[in-house]
Amino acid sequence: MNELLSTIDSPKDLAKFSDDQLTQLAAEIREALCTVVSDRTAHFASNLGVVELCIALHLVYDFSQDRLIWDTGHQVYPHKLITGRYHEFPTMRRKGGLMGFPNPHESPYDLFMTGHAGSSVSTVLGLKTGDDLLGHDERKAVAVIGDGALPSGIVFEAMNNAAELKKDMLVILNDNEMGICPRVGGLGKTLDKARTTPLYGEFKKDVSWILNQIPLVGGSVEKALVQTRDAIKASLHGGMLFEEMGFRYIGPIDGHDLATLREYLEMVKHLKGPVLLHIFTEKGHGFKPAAEDPVMFHTPPPFERNGHDSVVSVKKSSSRAYTNVASEAIHAAMRRDKRVSVLTAAMCEGNKLGKVRSEFPDRFFDTGICEGHAVAFAAGMAKAGARPVVDIYSTFLQRSFDQIFQEVALQNLPVTFCLDRAGLCGPDGPTHHGVFDVGYMRLFPNMVVMAPGDEKDVSAMLDFALDFDGPVSIRYPKTGADLVERPLAPIEIGHSEILEWGEDGTIVAFGATLAASIQAAARLRKEGLEIGVVNARFVKPLDTATILRAIDETGFVLTVEEGVLAGGFGSAVLEAANAEGRRTDHIHRLGISDQFVEHGDRGELLADLGLDAEGIFQAALQQVERAGATKDWGNRLEHPA
Amino acid sequence: MNELLSTIDSPKDLAKFSDDQLTQLAAEIREALCTVVSDRTAHFASNLGVVELCIALHLVYDFSQDRLIWDTGHQVYPHKLITGRYHEFPTMRRKGGLMGFPNPHESPYDLFMTGHAGSSVSTVLGLKTGDDLLGHDERKAVAVIGDGALPSGIVFEAMNNAAELKKDMLVILNDNEMGICPRVGGLGKTLDKARTTPLYGEFKKDVSWILNQIPLVGGSVEKALVQTRDAIKASLHGGMLFEEMGFRYIGPIDGHDLATLREYLEMVKHLKGPVLLHIFTEKGHGFKPAAEDPVMFHTPPPFERNGHDSVVSVKKSSSRAYTNVASEAIHAAMRRDKRVSVLTAAMCEGNKLGKVRSEFPDRFFDTGICEGHAVAFAAGMAKAGARPVVDIYSTFLQRSFDQIFQEVALQNLPVTFCLDRAGLCGPDGPTHHGVFDVGYMRLFPNMVVMAPGDEKDVSAMLDFALDFDGPVSIRYPKTGADLVERPLAPIEIGHSEILEWGEDGTIVAFGATLAASIQAAARLRKEGLEIGVVNARFVKPLDTATILRAIDETGFVLTVEEGVLAGGFGSAVLEAANAEGRRTDHIHRLGISDQFVEHGDRGELLADLGLDAEGIFQAALQQVERAGATKDWGNRLEHPA
Repeated sequence: MNELLSTIDSPKDLAKFSDDQLTQLAAEIREALCTVVSDRTAHFASNLGVVELCIALHLVYDFSQDRLIWDTGHQVYPHKLITGRYHEFPTMRRKGGLMGFPNPHESPYDLFMTGHAGSSVSTVLGLKTGDDLLGHDERKAVAVIGDGALPSGIVFEAMNNAAELKKDMLVILNDNEMGICPRVGGLGKTLDKARTTPLYGEFKKDVSWILNQIPLVGGSVEKALVQTRDAIKASLHGGMLFEEMGFRYIGPIDGHDLATLREYLEMVKHLKGPVLLHIFTEKGHGFKPAAEDPVMFHTPPPFERNGHDSVVSVKKSSSRAYTNVASEAIHAAMRRDKRVSVLTAAMCEGNKLGKVRSEFPDRFFDTGICEGHAVAFAAGMAKAGARPVVDIYSTFLQRSFDQIFQEVALQNLPVTFCLDRAGLCGPDGPTHHGVFDVGYMRLFPNMVVMAPGDEKDVSAMLDFALDFDGPVSIRYPKTGADLVERPLAPIEIGHSEILEWGEDGTIVAFGATLAASIQAAARLRKEGLEIGVVNARFVKPLDTATILRAIDETGFVLTVEEGVLAGGFGSAVLEAANAEGRRTDHIHRLGISDQFVEHGDRGELLADLGLDAEGIFQAALQQVERAGATKDWGNRLEHPA
Repeated sequence: MNELLSTIDSPKDLAKFSDDQLTQLAAEIREALCTVVSDRTAHFASNLGVVELCIALHLVYDFSQDRLIWDTGHQVYPHKLITGRYHEFPTMRRKGGLMGFPNPHESPYDLFMTGHAGSSVSTVLGLKTGDDLLGHDERKAVAVIGDGALPSGIVFEAMNNAAELKKDMLVILNDNEMGICPRVGGLGKTLDKARTTPLYGEFKKDVSWILNQIPLVGGSVEKALVQTRDAIKASLHGGMLFEEMGFRYIGPIDGHDLATLREYLEMVKHLKGPVLLHIFTEKGHGFKPAAEDPVMFHTPPPFERNGHDSVVSVKKSSSRAYTNVASEAIHAAMRRDKRVSVLTAAMCEGNKLGKVRSEFPDRFFDTGICEGHAVAFAAGMAKAGARPVVDIYSTFLQRSFDQIFQEVALQNLPVTFCLDRAGLCGPDGPTHHGVFDVGYMRLFPNMVVMAPGDEKDVSAMLDFALDFDGPVSIRYPKTGADLVERPLAPIEIGHSEILEWGEDGTIVAFGATLAASIQAAARLRKEGLEIGVVNARFVKPLDTATILRAIDETGFVLTVEEGVLAGGFGSAVLEAANAEGRRTDHIHRLGISDQFVEHGDRGELLADLGLDAEGIFQAALQQVERAGATKDWGNRLEHPA
């Protein structure tokens, strides 16, 4: 098993294989993918689709010198397998193991840690430009980008710039008619035209030859003829859009035909100027269930399979996640209020919006991977009187930072942001953790920034947001939803929820760290300590009154958040205390220090960061000890309640 | 004078004018523009270019119901003049007066405060979608966007989405072959092709008619013919790119011919689906010096004119600004080190990079208004071993928040960010103030965040950054550069510069607030107080040692920054003090509280915010008094030095 794959130390070893062996290698790669991915949640269908492309690229280019960027990066598994990481492959996406995205710390064949879509054309243009500047103009540069990432605005920006700079670079459009969900947008029609063009093959070549005979001389009639010729050519091959943008369009070709791929790559390798090679692949190719349902098999849960033909069982998780709770709350709001619409940026599946899409197709908007547009689009709707909900992962919403500023906060428009995957997302790692949103959302005037402490808070917050006359953001993590038993206090702007009060100290949890905070407090209570727990709910506006009361009347304040400490919730608490002239030396902040958090199981990562119940318990205990040693300092004495 | 213009209360009044009167009105608008703009620095050439378009739009549409967005917004003056703001026009860009951009607080005819380019297509799509949802589908929707803003990625995202949604909306491409600087990018060629198409007029119509006879029946040959027909048609009118993207392309037409404009607007008003109307205008039209030098007359300094034909004198400022100092430092670095390149996003003029461009054309990159791409492009260059400097205004760099995160900070690449216009930019107002960058830059691991205290710091910091093996950001404001006389301490990572030390208190200035801080301290010294001044230089990594020493050994610490307080420099000081277990109640933070700052003279705005020498003096004095009243609390006693 894997007799060829296991012998590959570097892509240079591919040269020794015969054509038949390369076919076998492709099969072995697919088998390795199936083995590892059936065992854990990981990106699957996209990797199955690029096996031949990956082999062909490494056969034709030498990426120890040439430059290769896999856009979005989740299709990098075959590349990892043939760049010396076969033996580590079973560690994929495990803590300390291989990352599910390109990772320069793993291999010099991985240039950029990618994960957010669309930036490959820019970085490849930069690599080529840098190489040219430094006298390495022999180095080739290649970006592989999917049709799902193509509509992302940065791709257009980069192609426009590349056309002007006329750099020798290759963009391979890996067109499988899919993002994670089926692709959206007008652009898709252009790609489909290429696919269905009837004049393929010899006839097309003949027509092109004839057209090329039209002379390139001056004069207005000749100029018109040349334009017409170019137009007909572009029409014949369907790549008019790319030609218009200044790229030479080649294709479409079959992305599973290794010989054709090699032939075309050898040809385009030596072309001058920016070239787009359009290849068609099948997402999930070679594993029947994945090819038939590439959406489900984008990142399937662990499954048991029968060879490459069928799946025996899928270990679906039965737990109710924050994402489900939020999508149900959105669905309920849309039923109730016809003004409510929802926008997603290609994450209909991830955001569990399928039911909303089918029930309210007129108020469901999938913009594709275009977060900047999605937010400005929502702002326009809000200005017209609608109540848009922008449902985007925290980390991807970063793409719309400026639109949140200008189109939403500055105009004070009632757009509700649902920041899914806020906090640590687990095995996807640093490109996908959503740890900066509290820091950036609270910069903007007018923005209300919230996080639910448990699942009951989610729908209450959404309802609050949809009634509120201004922008609101609500963040929640990728995890099972907690349920804190208590009489739910209604959501009031700038009000936290006091779950317990205790003289010895207060744990103030912002968001889903509440459950662990309650557990930690319970343990401390068992130790005989009077520890309060506050469900902060808001970071902006902050519940200053409750925070000051905790500062003034209890032994310590421990803030807990699943995000970076710089500028985060704890920082907002310090700012408020400082503005009110309070001491802060009995405030301690738990969160993520100044580091990129690696991939791994979410629970493991939280434990490492001291953000689980044990970590919170230990931190609180330290504060108890510290407060005991310095009791006379307390604000209690200086600001008697 | 202005006998027609002065009678206009609302655009509805336009209906009463004859064609000749409308021509006169256009002249009166230009005269009003000349009068006001020659008196102050304001946007000029772009406003001169859209006079006829603005009149035609308000004649054909009723924007009390229909929707109109002026993209980027600096061309909104004629619109303000004919929507009831003629009499307030002399207050333009003055504090409390009219804003130089659309402003919903001024008029219901201004829907969005625009300023950052490219989002109009998104917001108009949103407005139209919202109107349709809420039963107002009779409302028309129009975006006016310049060819300078067109390559901005969000435009592409929005057009792609609009094509799919098939909304009835009009995008007017105001093509003057210019951004602020001459336009860049491959897209320009497509637009030029439209301009130079030789088959204009009747012949073109005939050809189109013949082509339309090709039947739209099934079968592969017919399909090929239809594709060919579409291609030839697109070639004839030059709008292939837009047609490919799913827009109906109409034009190009003369944007200064009022009759033609009206005729075409009347026609496209009733078309179904997304339409792009391509108009050609001349930037600076009707005022000869501006038409001849639209770059200089984009936002000219005050000038004296001779009618509409010539300029007698221009009151150019002779002061040396931070921008000049930075561009000279960049120039010097490029001379010294061939690895250094510089990128600007359409702000070659604003960033004073003309000399760099002409001297080092191979290492100067103007990406157009594509900040996201610019940063990812720079990251690619850095990965290849170059030393790119990204020179972008603070507020516009917000567009690349996600690329700063993923392509630069996460990869820990040596990209240097020069954030020009960081702080209050003055008369441009809230869309242009750069007040969030400290808050967002310091979120990212690996990022070094600096601000020069005076002009000497600028080149020292740039040199430091170019030697540093990781990302660095340097922010400086739009103002004359200060020069603080002192033996310049070398830039060392995480080290501030102590200019004076005093037991009674410490003013810690981050960035260009240093000069005012020194003045304030000098006044306090005259009062007999021992006040220190620290040039912070770094917010990340922070000079914790010096900060703690000031906290422990001096009566108070006053932090001063030209940016929002939330998550800013002062907040970083609080975080550091808290992490080290220090009290913070004798720390006071000056900066911008949670509000959008309006437009006005920079000095006035700083004074209003208490960020001038007087404000700092008063704040320090308060701290002295407070410290005097509570001396026993001081850390001095608990942490003896």
